[in-house]
Amino acid sequence: MKKIILPNREEWSRLVERPKIEKNELDTIVKNIINEVKTRKDQALIAYSKQFDNVELNSLQVTKTEIEEAKLLVSDELKNAIFIAQNNIEKFHQNQQLDEAVVETTIGVKCWRKAVPIEKVGLYIPSGSAPLFSSILMLAIPAKIAGCKEIILCTPPNQQGKVHPAILYTANLVGATKIFKVGGAQAIAAMAYGTESIPQMYKIFGPGNQYVTKAKELVQQNGVAIDMPAGPSEVLIIADETCNPEFVAADLLSQAEHGSDSQVILLSDNTTVIDKSIKALNEQVELLPRAETAKKAIQNSCAIQLKNLNACMEFSNLYAPEHLILASDNSNKLINAVINAGSVFIGNYSCESAGDYASGTNHTLPTNAYARNYSGVSLSSFQKNITFQKITAEGIQSIGPAIEIMAEEEGLFAHKNAVSLRLKSLKK
Amino acid sequence: MKKIILPNREEWSRLVERPKIEKNELDTIVKNIINEVKTRKDQALIAYSKQFDNVELNSLQVTKTEIEEAKLLVSDELKNAIFIAQNNIEKFHQNQQLDEAVVETTIGVKCWRKAVPIEKVGLYIPSGSAPLFSSILMLAIPAKIAGCKEIILCTPPNQQGKVHPAILYTANLVGATKIFKVGGAQAIAAMAYGTESIPQMYKIFGPGNQYVTKAKELVQQNGVAIDMPAGPSEVLIIADETCNPEFVAADLLSQAEHGSDSQVILLSDNTTVIDKSIKALNEQVELLPRAETAKKAIQNSCAIQLKNLNACMEFSNLYAPEHLILASDNSNKLINAVINAGSVFIGNYSCESAGDYASGTNHTLPTNAYARNYSGVSLSSFQKNITFQKITAEGIQSIGPAIEIMAEEEGLFAHKNAVSLRLKSLKK
Repeated sequence: MKKIILPNREEWSRLVERPKIEKNELDTIVKNIINEVKTRKDQALIAYSKQFDNVELNSLQVTKTEIEEAKLLVSDELKNAIFIAQNNIEKFHQNQQLDEAVVETTIGVKCWRKAVPIEKVGLYIPSGSAPLFSSILMLAIPAKIAGCKEIILCTPPNQQGKVHPAILYTANLVGATKIFKVGGAQAIAAMAYGTESIPQMYKIFGPGNQYVTKAKELVQQNGVAIDMPAGPSEVLIIADETCNPEFVAADLLSQAEHGSDSQVILLSDNTTVIDKSIKALNEQVELLPRAETAKKAIQNSCAIQLKNLNACMEFSNLYAPEHLILASDNSNKLINAVINAGSVFIGNYSCESAGDYASGTNHTLPTNAYARNYSGVSLSSFQKNITFQKITAEGIQSIGPAIEIMAEEEGLFAHKNAVSLRLKSLKK
Repeated sequence: MKKIILPNREEWSRLVERPKIEKNELDTIVKNIINEVKTRKDQALIAYSKQFDNVELNSLQVTKTEIEEAKLLVSDELKNAIFIAQNNIEKFHQNQQLDEAVVETTIGVKCWRKAVPIEKVGLYIPSGSAPLFSSILMLAIPAKIAGCKEIILCTPPNQQGKVHPAILYTANLVGATKIFKVGGAQAIAAMAYGTESIPQMYKIFGPGNQYVTKAKELVQQNGVAIDMPAGPSEVLIIADETCNPEFVAADLLSQAEHGSDSQVILLSDNTTVIDKSIKALNEQVELLPRAETAKKAIQNSCAIQLKNLNACMEFSNLYAPEHLILASDNSNKLINAVINAGSVFIGNYSCESAGDYASGTNHTLPTNAYARNYSGVSLSSFQKNITFQKITAEGIQSIGPAIEIMAEEEGLFAHKNAVSLRLKSLKK
């Protein structure tokens, strides 16, 4: 892990830059996959499963029997852990219901908003090296609270044509309406355009590799909404002398193990904190099953000493991290200074993995500096807000003349006329 | 206007389809413009102004003197109308502040969200045949309420290098921080990547022609957020025997005058209503300055008789109109059945132009069936929600074991270790 001591303000803009990802070469490959799925539908999906997942499927949808089997294969211990996480995630997202009063902007002009579920949502859940059943909780629970009618899930099968039991158990638990054995860019295409088996969805959510990400980006240009643009996962930790360097190291590593392209940043006003954290990190990494991945991620990463905690926060806001950990007993002061971040973990006991699994907050968050302009997934990601207005005769008499003048100035005489006719009818 | 009587349910999916827009040929043109602006910055902008707007500019930013001049050129009548609109739009959007309680999901695990302004937002305001100062109100007012630090505005100058006074007056009134004389795709590129004069923005809003729309779509793929995808404007009216056919016709026309690609749809359970509305429309259209445009739009449009109002609402939800007018004295019953719509106008006095200008609701709305999966612009479009969590020793002891089990099942041992180290330290 590179150590950088008191860099100049001019160097900051280079330091907050993410490693560049070359995306162009993917374009053609993923466009072809999408076109194949649009044209040949289920046939294309079955062919890609053979090609990419090395499995021959007769049918794509997971059956009730398979779900029942999965229930038996998940330990009670894991079921109980999932139950705890589910409960907390439900509580946090239930609190996000829109509850806005009707506003009477002028007497006789009532305006309001109503949150209405997006009817059809598709969730993509990867399952390569790890079955990410936690992402099912993070996506299906708010979808269910929102009231989405169809919540379908696509996930790649293994070479035996089976889906990991923890995925099936969780998807069924939280109310996914249909589950399909399809992975990769082809799954995104299927949910975006529909096939014989897989219904067309209005919005697509979920993590994935660069093919999945590219496919989401491409279908978005054709009217399908997506949760957010995606990049490699990242954490930034601001630690002061009241931190525990062992915890800091563990939190840096829990991000680094995600992928060799993950980025972790440690900021501190204190050299000793940095040295101790790097030492602890070097010791802890050796004990990890995914040590090789974590070590590669750490090569892209750095620990930076800045002159004080305000400077650390300023740097963090420029970097706009997906996860921001304030590893300090005095972090309350810093909270109000957070401008750009996905999710913030306050104090020495708020580890990132708590938010990844069970504290209740959502773990689908903006990466790659998107925290400057995007929010993480929340209840509202599964809803759209419709505005309503009800104007009485008195109301249109109040605001009508202003509308007539503005419409005329914009050269829109039919707009004006719609008001004039109503005002005239009221003069009779 | 085509009249369609009681179409079969199978015909609906064809009837709700929008006219196809061919976008591919734009790709190369707009990509070139974007690359030019990225490379040659202000020089490119000045060259494009000469090429497209037929004007030679020495500097791009509108000066204080120009703003002062504009104030003198706007009539008191228009200033007063803008004041009324501003007031109502402010009231409606101020009501949208996020006010969520902190949730203690488990004892010692506190989670909450905070809405934080997007720091830098760019607004694009077209000014060709009409100076759309109303769109400035709709975008800059919520940006200001959100607390965005930089709110810049780009709008094309006329051949004398001047911006329409109503645009300058309104932009200054609502607190735009800088105004630039740049139009088209080049303005979007400038705000997305920055030039010597124009600062780089994090999110770009505003209407525009197909070049502007394409440019927004392209910069979105590079991390710049945009308000929403755009298509031609549209209205769907559901009218019953209690409607006023003169009003219905006027509302259809106020949409049709927007552009020859606009679409207007009339649904009714009553043949007489349809016939009277079409008759009134044919009479009214002749009196409009933009009659030619409106007539072309009407060619793409139709009046459809369905068996009852429930069927009308079902059709409307399938169509997902940008604007939905419930032209009836009995429209209260229908309100709860609205699933897909941008903004809804209830009753015979709620004309669309009220919402376009002055009722208080936002007129930046999802077109092209995007109302199925996108909301219109609101206060939250100018904010991102950051999640926070604060976990105590007691809190991590409660949820820690569940996190350990889930992380292990997902094969993420560093995630587990971040919790295990904390639990161990608490056992001492």
